[in-house]
Amino acid sequence: MIVVMKQEATGAQVADVTARVEQLGCQVHISEGKERTIIGIIGNGRPLDREQFERMDGVERTVPILRPFKLAGRGFHPQDTVVTVNGVQIGGRQLVVMAGPCAVESREQLLATAHVVKEAGAHVLRGGAFKPRTSPYSFQGLGDEGLRILAEAREQTGLTVVTEVIEPQMVSLVATHADILQVGARNMHNYALLHAVGESQRPVLLKRGMMSTVEELLMAAEYILSHGNNRVILCERGIRTFERYTRFTLDISAVPLLKQLSHLPVVVDPSHGTGKWELVEPVSRAAVAAGADGLIVEVHPHPEDALSDGAQSLRPTRFAALMQSLRPVVEAVGRTL
Amino acid sequence: MIVVMKQEATGAQVADVTARVEQLGCQVHISEGKERTIIGIIGNGRPLDREQFERMDGVERTVPILRPFKLAGRGFHPQDTVVTVNGVQIGGRQLVVMAGPCAVESREQLLATAHVVKEAGAHVLRGGAFKPRTSPYSFQGLGDEGLRILAEAREQTGLTVVTEVIEPQMVSLVATHADILQVGARNMHNYALLHAVGESQRPVLLKRGMMSTVEELLMAAEYILSHGNNRVILCERGIRTFERYTRFTLDISAVPLLKQLSHLPVVVDPSHGTGKWELVEPVSRAAVAAGADGLIVEVHPHPEDALSDGAQSLRPTRFAALMQSLRPVVEAVGRTL
Amino acid sequence: MIVVMKQEATGAQVADVTARVEQLGCQVHISEGKERTIIGIIGNGRPLDREQFERMDGVERTVPILRPFKLAGRGFHPQDTVVTVNGVQIGGRQLVVMAGPCAVESREQLLATAHVVKEAGAHVLRGGAFKPRTSPYSFQGLGDEGLRILAEAREQTGLTVVTEVIEPQMVSLVATHADILQVGARNMHNYALLHAVGESQRPVLLKRGMMSTVEELLMAAEYILSHGNNRVILCERGIRTFERYTRFTLDISAVPLLKQLSHLPVVVDPSHGTGKWELVEPVSRAAVAAGADGLIVEVHPHPEDALSDGAQSLRPTRFAALMQSLRPVVEAVGRTL
Amino acid sequence: MIVVMKQEATGAQVADVTARVEQLGCQVHISEGKERTIIGIIGNGRPLDREQFERMDGVERTVPILRPFKLAGRGFHPQDTVVTVNGVQIGGRQLVVMAGPCAVESREQLLATAHVVKEAGAHVLRGGAFKPRTSPYSFQGLGDEGLRILAEAREQTGLTVVTEVIEPQMVSLVATHADILQVGARNMHNYALLHAVGESQRPVLLKRGMMSTVEELLMAAEYILSHGNNRVILCERGIRTFERYTRFTLDISAVPLLKQLSHLPVVVDPSHGTGKWELVEPVSRAAVAAGADGLIVEVHPHPEDALSDGAQSLRPTRFAALMQSLRPVVEAVGRTL
Repeated sequence: MIVVMKQEATGAQVADVTARVEQLGCQVHISEGKERTIIGIIGNGRPLDREQFERMDGVERTVPILRPFKLAGRGFHPQDTVVTVNGVQIGGRQLVVMAGPCAVESREQLLATAHVVKEAGAHVLRGGAFKPRTSPYSFQGLGDEGLRILAEAREQTGLTVVTEVIEPQMVSLVATHADILQVGARNMHNYALLHAVGESQRPVLLKRGMMSTVEELLMAAEYILSHGNNRVILCERGIRTFERYTRFTLDISAVPLLKQLSHLPVVVDPSHGTGKWELVEPVSRAAVAAGADGLIVEVHPHPEDALSDGAQSLRPTRFAALMQSLRPVVEAVGRTL
Repeated sequence: MIVVMKQEATGAQVADVTARVEQLGCQVHISEGKERTIIGIIGNGRPLDREQFERMDGVERTVPILRPFKLAGRGFHPQDTVVTVNGVQIGGRQLVVMAGPCAVESREQLLATAHVVKEAGAHVLRGGAFKPRTSPYSFQGLGDEGLRILAEAREQTGLTVVTEVIEPQMVSLVATHADILQVGARNMHNYALLHAVGESQRPVLLKRGMMSTVEELLMAAEYILSHGNNRVILCERGIRTFERYTRFTLDISAVPLLKQLSHLPVVVDPSHGTGKWELVEPVSRAAVAAGADGLIVEVHPHPEDALSDGAQSLRPTRFAALMQSLRPVVEAVGRTL
Repeated sequence: MIVVMKQEATGAQVADVTARVEQLGCQVHISEGKERTIIGIIGNGRPLDREQFERMDGVERTVPILRPFKLAGRGFHPQDTVVTVNGVQIGGRQLVVMAGPCAVESREQLLATAHVVKEAGAHVLRGGAFKPRTSPYSFQGLGDEGLRILAEAREQTGLTVVTEVIEPQMVSLVATHADILQVGARNMHNYALLHAVGESQRPVLLKRGMMSTVEELLMAAEYILSHGNNRVILCERGIRTFERYTRFTLDISAVPLLKQLSHLPVVVDPSHGTGKWELVEPVSRAAVAAGADGLIVEVHPHPEDALSDGAQSLRPTRFAALMQSLRPVVEAVGRTL
Repeated sequence: MIVVMKQEATGAQVADVTARVEQLGCQVHISEGKERTIIGIIGNGRPLDREQFERMDGVERTVPILRPFKLAGRGFHPQDTVVTVNGVQIGGRQLVVMAGPCAVESREQLLATAHVVKEAGAHVLRGGAFKPRTSPYSFQGLGDEGLRILAEAREQTGLTVVTEVIEPQMVSLVATHADILQVGARNMHNYALLHAVGESQRPVLLKRGMMSTVEELLMAAEYILSHGNNRVILCERGIRTFERYTRFTLDISAVPLLKQLSHLPVVVDPSHGTGKWELVEPVSRAAVAAGADGLIVEVHPHPEDALSDGAQSLRPTRFAALMQSLRPVVEAVGRTL
């Protein structure tokens, strides 16, 4: 960390900062410029608290040097992490496609969708049993029954199942029915939940918050990793901007950036990322070309009847067409589908 | 709601939409323009699901007409709600000042702060026992012990106590020690938590998410209100933008906007809203002038030793100066301090 | 357009709105709901002024129905526009690659770059003679001399030349030396400049403002088109968001969205869009996969000596590698390079 | 500036950076940490080019230490600048109120407005003769005739006149009719225009771009100051965010922040900043309480007939009420109206 002193800082103030640094067991390098003094701090391995220094008299600001994440970083773990679950390898050579409805609405709806996405080549079935909805008057999911329907679909199709968990105390229940636990965008900062999934034995699909930085996403992954669960899959799903024609702005650069900063697999959600089914196919191709390890796509047998997110769901025939259209791009980047 | 048909929509597609509207028990008004047909839907009181229509063939988009919140809106409850707790009236004529450290760090720190803020004229003591922190390596709060220290401070000073609750199952524990339950910005979308505080008997200080619109804040309030707790206090605490000199961008317009849209009291957090103690005083004055019913300000006896958010905390002398500087503005808008 | 009346609006207020609509030669459709009256306006072809209605007594808000652009829209011109310049077809089957330094710094630098990008397969040479820079102390470009150097490079290599024009009165000068006029992101809202390039005979590369919506980009194109120049190429180059690891957030969804809304060709700038040369290759592949008609990439023979934007420029060898890596993706989407 | 080397950087790479620093006539301070080497550069007064270093092998990133603005900064000019024009002092003890219509629409409209705002206590008359509009089909202003009408209003009322200039070559024309030249938000990055107004003898009202940082606003002021015009008035007018109930998000913290960083006067535009006339009064009070030196408010005799921005314009009676409501707040912060 670097401490930038104010132009008018006194020698005594510089000495105070120096003393505090040494008290923390760190080394000091002082650079006295024409306009101001800069104090470099060589840490002892533990992250330093910037604010502690920013409040000292004579200090203008501090500048962090090291990235705040460790376990999630490439420095700590240079080779790619491949999350293997139920025979599916996420982060390997194969592009993994997760597909299914936003919410489990009925046994018929889910089983029908499961069969069509399986047939079209999907590897993982998605579907929410517990839905965090902005309005208390919207459909909140089927709950336990939804979990049982997902488990039945898994049995029938052999698909791996991912579903969202929204409360710490539900983790064990959800883990008995699902293969992968999803932490949704609205819960990326729910540390109690991150703690709970970190202690579970299930892989976790961690979605980026709609207003969270790439660094914060990696810090959320760090929470899970630091509680002992190293099977974390990152998911870019669009961030909030001033643009209004799309529901969110999918941050495509985040895909190669995350792959460079971290060893964890990266999946893209083009359905939430755009909010419009017409954009799902081109954006899916873009995600694959940018290096994503997988996609998570909303498919609904009758989008116009969907109880949530219908506008961004693909009909089964369009999902099959998407899989066809992906194949040449997948091969162009040296992967398999 | 209004359904805008595509330019090339067929008569059959218009008929399909019409049929669905009638099936939902709503009335239809069709306007056939030169370029396209517009279908107005007169609802039956229940909110309509836009996505259901957006996915129908021939539909270009839908346009909501009514605000999605009911219980939180002025229409439902025209007169101001005044939340009375422990003798303090929030939303009345008096400007309510909540002050204290970001986190309870020790008995000494909290009691010292409680006494100085009380003396300077604060009405409510703030302090976090459970801290949601971006990094798993940062101080996470004293937990239960922090709650007991807060309760002791209340006993010694008579101050009303507000503290954050971060998990649904903690609500009853926190409610036994604190007067007001705070739902933090990172948890504004944590619906399980909103549900839990909605069933509690304690007033709730609901902070706007750093990524949330004014409408979403009111919808989060709606969750709490719809579970039976009508003592909700809204809090503007800054939103995330591209500006980098401040930690967040405090949305001052949200204060009069919330007062116009809703009957609930509105409090402003200038400490998180700016992230810089130098800006707390002018922004506090602005909040009062804009019509805020209260302020929540971070005060720490030794900000440079603070375990969190030191850079935005006021020293006791500066807090006392803030209270002095607020008084003429409070009077200028016809309130008392 | 739709006018939503306030809940408490009187019959006289509804009548006032109706009278004004009819005065404008438009038709009225009134829908009286339980909670409020909605007035649909069937226009006469000309766009209506929403604000005029929003300020009338009893009006809550207005809702636009039609997109505000005409000439730039698909409705007006269903087939793709192909801009042909100097033998290069932009918007056709071939992916067009524009490459070169951010700024023309010297004859040697530009000619060297021109030859290497030509050899690697680029079709268009980019390079700024006039540079809009945030700081008055930064390099502002070589001016006229830069234009002459660009013209010489065109003669030597046969490459088509695109360069930025920053003032209306410079348009004719720049048009004598360059094949394509670039309107930069900071000038997308400079209407005097849009007017001037609209009256020129040269194709225009119009970059999206870093703060501009897709709709505003299309409206800026509308300015140029409405002044008689129908050879406009749109360019997505990243928008400003809260994310700090990248310089801008490249809006990949804007590519298919613009192709759906408009008939104009769409080019992507992965260099400015990310600000990091390490991200240029994956993001370029993503742009092609999403349907971009071209790329505009910064290449500098010695990025560490570049007078501007060095951090996002590719070395010649890396540019050659990019071209190689693009080829399979270009073919996967059915195009040629 | 500080250069952070990569973890795997070699000694030779560190030596290369060092050599380049010395070549620029700057001093080097090297700090070798456990994980990486940090190189501090003590400049020679001129700003350093970060990108030059960021592209060198072995460099991870650079960190600026000094603010990039000089002439606009408090360090250069510690005492407040007071811009005196036509007897009005902007930046002094008196709060300066600028008022008038968005656009000059007719002689009658402007003269009527001028008289009512004068009577209500405004000091400066605003009104646009040249209007930058998003749509080519919207009213673009009366042009020269508008300027003559403004000059007539000045003669009749004695009010100082501010009007927007949108092209460099118009500066001298506008300067013959107006007292203060306004550079609009869409032109904050129009460097040719900043250059031109920098060479004029008129004070300049410089509006913050809707997506520009505080630092960029100060850099735009730096352009004007560096061309010899030191009478610059900064204007906060709202920035673009994801919030949709208001047209922009007024950044209230920018007011005290600009006053701390710069010696230039700061004015707030609550009309554009909110886009809703209902919010103008509370936000104006907030701006005064936050330390603004002035306000610029849209007033229109018949907002429902306004050719632009009617929704945010005050009627004359509401403007008079605003002036009354401001008075106690102005006095509360020790100023006069």
